Amino acid sequence: MTSVTTTPFDDLSPVLQAAYRARAAAAELAPLPRAAKDDALLAIADALEVRTREIIEANAADIARAREAGTSDTVIDRLTLTPERIRVIASDVRDIVALPDPVGEVVRGSTLPNGLELRQLRVPLGVVGIIYEGRPNVTVDAAALCLKSGNAVLLRGSSSAYTSNTALVRVLRDAVHGAGLPADAIQLVPGESRESVTELMRARGMVDVLIPRGGAGLIKTVVEQSTVPVIETGTGNCHVYVDERADLDLAVDILVNAKAQRPSVCNAAETVLVHREVADEFLPKALAALRDAGVTVHGDEAWLKAGAAAGVEVVPATPEDWETEYLSYDIAAAVVDSLDAAVGHIRLWSSGHTEAILTTDTRAARRFVAMVDAAAVMVNASTRFTDGSEFGFGAEIGISTQKLHARGPMGLPELTSTKYVVTGDGHIR
Amino acid sequence: MTSVTTTPFDDLSPVLQAAYRARAAAAELAPLPRAAKDDALLAIADALEVRTREIIEANAADIARAREAGTSDTVIDRLTLTPERIRVIASDVRDIVALPDPVGEVVRGSTLPNGLELRQLRVPLGVVGIIYEGRPNVTVDAAALCLKSGNAVLLRGSSSAYTSNTALVRVLRDAVHGAGLPADAIQLVPGESRESVTELMRARGMVDVLIPRGGAGLIKTVVEQSTVPVIETGTGNCHVYVDERADLDLAVDILVNAKAQRPSVCNAAETVLVHREVADEFLPKALAALRDAGVTVHGDEAWLKAGAAAGVEVVPATPEDWETEYLSYDIAAAVVDSLDAAVGHIRLWSSGHTEAILTTDTRAARRFVAMVDAAAVMVNASTRFTDGSEFGFGAEIGISTQKLHARGPMGLPELTSTKYVVTGDGHIR
Repeated sequence: MTSVTTTPFDDLSPVLQAAYRARAAAAELAPLPRAAKDDALLAIADALEVRTREIIEANAADIARAREAGTSDTVIDRLTLTPERIRVIASDVRDIVALPDPVGEVVRGSTLPNGLELRQLRVPLGVVGIIYEGRPNVTVDAAALCLKSGNAVLLRGSSSAYTSNTALVRVLRDAVHGAGLPADAIQLVPGESRESVTELMRARGMVDVLIPRGGAGLIKTVVEQSTVPVIETGTGNCHVYVDERADLDLAVDILVNAKAQRPSVCNAAETVLVHREVADEFLPKALAALRDAGVTVHGDEAWLKAGAAAGVEVVPATPEDWETEYLSYDIAAAVVDSLDAAVGHIRLWSSGHTEAILTTDTRAARRFVAMVDAAAVMVNASTRFTDGSEFGFGAEIGISTQKLHARGPMGLPELTSTKYVVTGDGHIR
Repeated sequence: MTSVTTTPFDDLSPVLQAAYRARAAAAELAPLPRAAKDDALLAIADALEVRTREIIEANAADIARAREAGTSDTVIDRLTLTPERIRVIASDVRDIVALPDPVGEVVRGSTLPNGLELRQLRVPLGVVGIIYEGRPNVTVDAAALCLKSGNAVLLRGSSSAYTSNTALVRVLRDAVHGAGLPADAIQLVPGESRESVTELMRARGMVDVLIPRGGAGLIKTVVEQSTVPVIETGTGNCHVYVDERADLDLAVDILVNAKAQRPSVCNAAETVLVHREVADEFLPKALAALRDAGVTVHGDEAWLKAGAAAGVEVVPATPEDWETEYLSYDIAAAVVDSLDAAVGHIRLWSSGHTEAILTTDTRAARRFVAMVDAAAVMVNASTRFTDGSEFGFGAEIGISTQKLHARGPMGLPELTSTKYVVTGDGHIR
């Protein structure tokens, strides 16, 4: 699908040259045993600690630029690296060392009737492109996960972190090279311009997959413009449905946890739907608890009425509220006539991340699980549990909200493809 | 990613209306137990046999149009349905009934340290779009595989088979409806225009995956224009590498089988690479056997020389030969200096379908398997074995040559996604 193979290397753009070198590095990484990759990861962790000052200095330049540009304190905090934060990043790399290597796992195997031996093995994807915003820790995290799974990585962070990312990637490459692996396994996409992103998105045949990590706008752009296959991550318009047979006190606890324990993340709840049968009892409790947690309710008529009765301010919900991923102390709220009406609402507005039902009725739970189409469905648990670490995967490169290849938290196996190996002794058809 | 959810149904184009109805049908199919789907498949098989005349009459119209347009006999043969062919198609549907249902399979499961019960279940993808050329049997085959795996299907065959496909889909829909399932689970994409294909390719959020089945041109178009995730299938520039330690008589048999047993299919060999150490002995044998099988060799200098010495005509190979998928009685041929040179050639030109090494040396086999990046790697076996039926999968919707989601022959499990179901009793973080 690409003509790159027949174009002289020097005629390629810097981005395609990087992709070309990444392909060559990927070919070297693919057959490596686990020990070689783990040694390189340990070298990375050590180098991050030894060269902390160099990283902090580069980061200071990004922070100064951001301050001049009038960037908000929240965003500057996300951009900021400290010695303590670098120690945590290094420690996360060491945690990845401890995880099993997915490459080489036999996923399926059999001896066919004609004696052919069939094995389906996990193999690296090849070259993974990560397009991300903000936090420079993603640079190290993504590089380490890709290296462990035998993939070369092309990193395209936000231009606001370009100096930090350049320093981090220099440290990573030196460590990888020192461990005897190809430095080109980890590369920053050259250039800060939008064109470099566009080129990356059109490098089908050179880049095997793109994983955008960031806001809905970024992901939409990548999905619409990329010819390289994309894995969508991280948009979470998550719902909590309180069934007519829910334990209402538990339901209040779960709702508050799902919304307010950490509102800025994709697995936080954004809408609560309540069965009409329990609305009279549940709404006052929920309104008080949400108010105490600092949450503003954007409610339908039933919630507005309950708010007025309870003396809690409720903002009238508009259709936009049903599709909004607030990522803040806000929640949309509606009363529904039935479980099926809740499912209908969710099917219409869900981003396919995580949906929760709170009920003591096994039939209701079964029906909700069967009818709701999402990466994760929670029964009597907070939406906040959809997370690679909570699921026991050890690490995650993101949470896929699409259905192809990987769905839900993506650990190391999700960064692999497979290859069939068929062994015979002269078999013909 | 789509605004379709907020657009009134009547304002949607016919293609999007079809997709919308398919989505609704998919929601009904998803929770169905196997028996309900198998009953509908049996009803389809019966209906195809009962209504054979109606299908043949519609097919005759397509054939007449094709003859008027001066279509070649080969293509008309592919388009043609006969009572016997319809019986075979119905029998293939009954074979799908016998296959296990992938939906509901627990792929992974555990009880987390906090007591949450985690299960990863196979679920249907949702709405599958198939864009295909020629043979009307694909219409039934694709519909049956999608139905068995709980997916709704949007079929876009070639306009040359539009009348046949319309009749077939009418029969399928009646059978599905008669079995109590939603007829909209199987739909022909309305309209014969190119615009209907374009609309299908841009229906992200409504269509979950597109599988183009056909020539390289079709697949390239879909890959470049589609915002719906695509699974590439079927381009096979397959290589046979004869190592310095190959059993040369077996190697000749495998080479001839790989090339000539059925040259028109994607797993046929298109290039043979021979280690220089065995060229003097192998080339004359291979040239004679390929000539006897009716195969024209497009050779490099060594093959040209061997041809001249053996009195077998060899066509000089051009760079285009290395990338050509002939699908005919032609083969490109080169001599290489080493296994690594063979791997280098293959990495440059392979379409990632099937690559074979013929060797008695376990180290060479291991290295080739590790270094070659393809859906299937054969050791001492013909490339022709890469096939869902040969692999024991019972049926296939195509052979994926990409790395995401599915690679190699795609059976029923490859038509599914997964969903995490997490059950607790009031768990919060």
